[in-house]
Amino acid sequence: MLKKVLIANRGEIAVRIIRACRELNIKTVAVYSEVDRGALHTKLADEAICIGAGPAKDSYLNIENIISAAKLSEADAIHPGYGFLSENGEFASVCKDYNIEFIGPEAATIDCLGNKSKAREIMIKAGVPIIPGSKGAVLDEEEALKEAEIVGYPVMVKASAGGGGRGIRIVKSKEELISVFKTAKTEAKNAFGDDTMYIEKFIENPRHIEFQILGDSYGNIIHLGERDCSIQRRHQKVLEEAPSAIISKDLREKMGEAAIKAGKAVNYKNAGTIEFLVDKYGDFYFMEINTRIQVEHPVTEAVTGIDIVKEQLKIASGETLSFSQEDIKVKGHAIECRINAEDSRNGFRPSPGKINFVHFPGGSGVRIDSAIYNECTIPPTYDSMIAKLIVYGKDRYEAICKMRRALSEFIIDGVNTNIDFQFEILNNKAFNEGVFDTSFIEKEFGL
Amino acid sequence: MLKKVLIANRGEIAVRIIRACRELNIKTVAVYSEVDRGALHTKLADEAICIGAGPAKDSYLNIENIISAAKLSEADAIHPGYGFLSENGEFASVCKDYNIEFIGPEAATIDCLGNKSKAREIMIKAGVPIIPGSKGAVLDEEEALKEAEIVGYPVMVKASAGGGGRGIRIVKSKEELISVFKTAKTEAKNAFGDDTMYIEKFIENPRHIEFQILGDSYGNIIHLGERDCSIQRRHQKVLEEAPSAIISKDLREKMGEAAIKAGKAVNYKNAGTIEFLVDKYGDFYFMEINTRIQVEHPVTEAVTGIDIVKEQLKIASGETLSFSQEDIKVKGHAIECRINAEDSRNGFRPSPGKINFVHFPGGSGVRIDSAIYNECTIPPTYDSMIAKLIVYGKDRYEAICKMRRALSEFIIDGVNTNIDFQFEILNNKAFNEGVFDTSFIEKEFGL
Repeated sequence: MLKKVLIANRGEIAVRIIRACRELNIKTVAVYSEVDRGALHTKLADEAICIGAGPAKDSYLNIENIISAAKLSEADAIHPGYGFLSENGEFASVCKDYNIEFIGPEAATIDCLGNKSKAREIMIKAGVPIIPGSKGAVLDEEEALKEAEIVGYPVMVKASAGGGGRGIRIVKSKEELISVFKTAKTEAKNAFGDDTMYIEKFIENPRHIEFQILGDSYGNIIHLGERDCSIQRRHQKVLEEAPSAIISKDLREKMGEAAIKAGKAVNYKNAGTIEFLVDKYGDFYFMEINTRIQVEHPVTEAVTGIDIVKEQLKIASGETLSFSQEDIKVKGHAIECRINAEDSRNGFRPSPGKINFVHFPGGSGVRIDSAIYNECTIPPTYDSMIAKLIVYGKDRYEAICKMRRALSEFIIDGVNTNIDFQFEILNNKAFNEGVFDTSFIEKEFGL
Repeated sequence: MLKKVLIANRGEIAVRIIRACRELNIKTVAVYSEVDRGALHTKLADEAICIGAGPAKDSYLNIENIISAAKLSEADAIHPGYGFLSENGEFASVCKDYNIEFIGPEAATIDCLGNKSKAREIMIKAGVPIIPGSKGAVLDEEEALKEAEIVGYPVMVKASAGGGGRGIRIVKSKEELISVFKTAKTEAKNAFGDDTMYIEKFIENPRHIEFQILGDSYGNIIHLGERDCSIQRRHQKVLEEAPSAIISKDLREKMGEAAIKAGKAVNYKNAGTIEFLVDKYGDFYFMEINTRIQVEHPVTEAVTGIDIVKEQLKIASGETLSFSQEDIKVKGHAIECRINAEDSRNGFRPSPGKINFVHFPGGSGVRIDSAIYNECTIPPTYDSMIAKLIVYGKDRYEAICKMRRALSEFIIDGVNTNIDFQFEILNNKAFNEGVFDTSFIEKEFGL
């Protein structure tokens, strides 16, 4: 088993990883930027090393400083968390050069899945259903027109280097295509330094359904069922649940098989997520693979009883998966609300600052993953998510009632939060009926 | 379903009950004494009514004031929690007179089970193994000598009106018996106003194993498996777990059947606990039935997935149990540590006062049931338990590791606590091996 793990991250996910390490008797090294002096992850870890100034590029994105900290503390592995360097193939590769285990897939896997058009090609070969679209890159307007005609409008013009909702344009008709294509190409060049574009069918009113997979170093890959992450604002997930209210047993099996095919096609190792869109006919389409632990992993942990971060650590230690697909049983229902320091009544503007008073909900079936504490300060420098509230109930109705109860107890004084907004979602009729798609927040709240 | 429940209690159990009500859309009424103004349960409930001065006899034990509060607020039921009036047959009976549903068994059941020698007689008839001893009361020294000879030394001389460890003497030989019997009889007269005595075999090095039962109003009774509560200090439970490390599947089935027999013998309704002693040969003996929700109920909830307080509310609403014995599956392992405001390094003296800073552990498999919050004050007036920390893991080893991790994150500043002491238990070799009995703390810590 690994002896000492450096966590190249901050906030709740750093705390999450430290907890898993401690329960497995693995020593931990926290790293922190100058603005994170006093952050909870630095207090909980066995050691803490400052890796630079506040801006992420100087610290949490600074590969050299992080590797130095790992060498200095004699860590034998690095867990990248999510965001920052977690999906950076170069970082994974440098870790290997320095004989440090990178807790995630191989650098080559990260790189090839980071390229959207390459990933599509692999999935086509593997027989995983993808969104109808151009085979690989579309070079110019003429080709774009041709491909769009084959696919059928509405289509999406996508930057190959984009991701997480960035670099995407929807085109409703032939007339719009040429100008949108040109603009998007220029934007992609400026944003990502890469103007490779491709065209995909625009799936109307889809659900965002993703499958958690785990793969060990010996080719064993299993999935842990799906998460429904359709409740999004501007492509940012707001509330996630497992299982999905609309996925039948049959569809779960089919999508699960596709998820495993996708993983096997890239010889996937460690924890990963296969994101799909599901349309109103129950047809599903591969979107992308996230090669990291996800923010929303706790809902899967709640319904399967599998501790995904511990599994990551065991896989990185060279252990074989200790369970097979047949052992995985999804039971009950879990919901996660992301609690952000933002002003949900004023355009969701970030609301950093000092927390004067915090009181977490507790009791049966309530889990809190957070790095905040009384009188701590939320710096304006990073992501605005300050806590995750996860509930587990025997069915979706109980989970919803429990989440409402838990939200009603949650007190954060000093910064604005989206707790009231989450409460509104939980009280929404369509949400309660399970009838919604990725445009839910736009439609129901006019946002 | 009940519409409005008054909670005749305080602290974490009042909060626990409010949470269950809220998740079932039942309105809640908190009651509080003058020293509990500002207590968490008053803030979480829909209404809060002051019922008198600090001393329990003036408020939480004041039947008249509590009934008035229930009538005033038009509550249709009262949940008594544990302690205070929870096992007071008169209170249950007065509730009935006022047409208020008492959430617990019938007054007659409470009364007959409160009398230890009566309870023994019922169990003998029902075929539930009891500790060998005198049939009913032992009138004088001569009879005591005769009964002790039959039972075999060591024996216990017990006051019929005693309970929870009070009114018990151990006698190792014939020579000691007469003088101990006389003294104990006089003491019982003074302490309980009742000097009815009986004699029981002293079970050496027993485990305290109790079975949770649930009974509805239609004669259906099921059990939820056992809890091991052997870790005690002066007959007060300190740490509890489910399942027990020493109960085999066979023994669990046998004891479970006995627990149900015991429940059926008194036509038990609502949640109750059958306490047994288990000796080193695996033989078990009925001790008593607690006719209330227990402090340690969350460990059973964790391993069975049944919300016991919600079941209490459903039973009191007249619902039939929605599951049968076959539906109950014990999975994984749960441990509860009672966190007390006491100075474990100085004779466990209570340590009330202001809490300057509190930080609860969180993350996967961690549950907190508590009524404390930042800058609240623990009054010296009541019990010193201020929080329950419950963890759930896939097996006993994982649960122990998780509890150690969670305790290491738990910060309470301002009052002394037993967190360090709990940590020592978790690190104790005998505890880790599961080899202990009710004398564990005495033996291992010289207390």
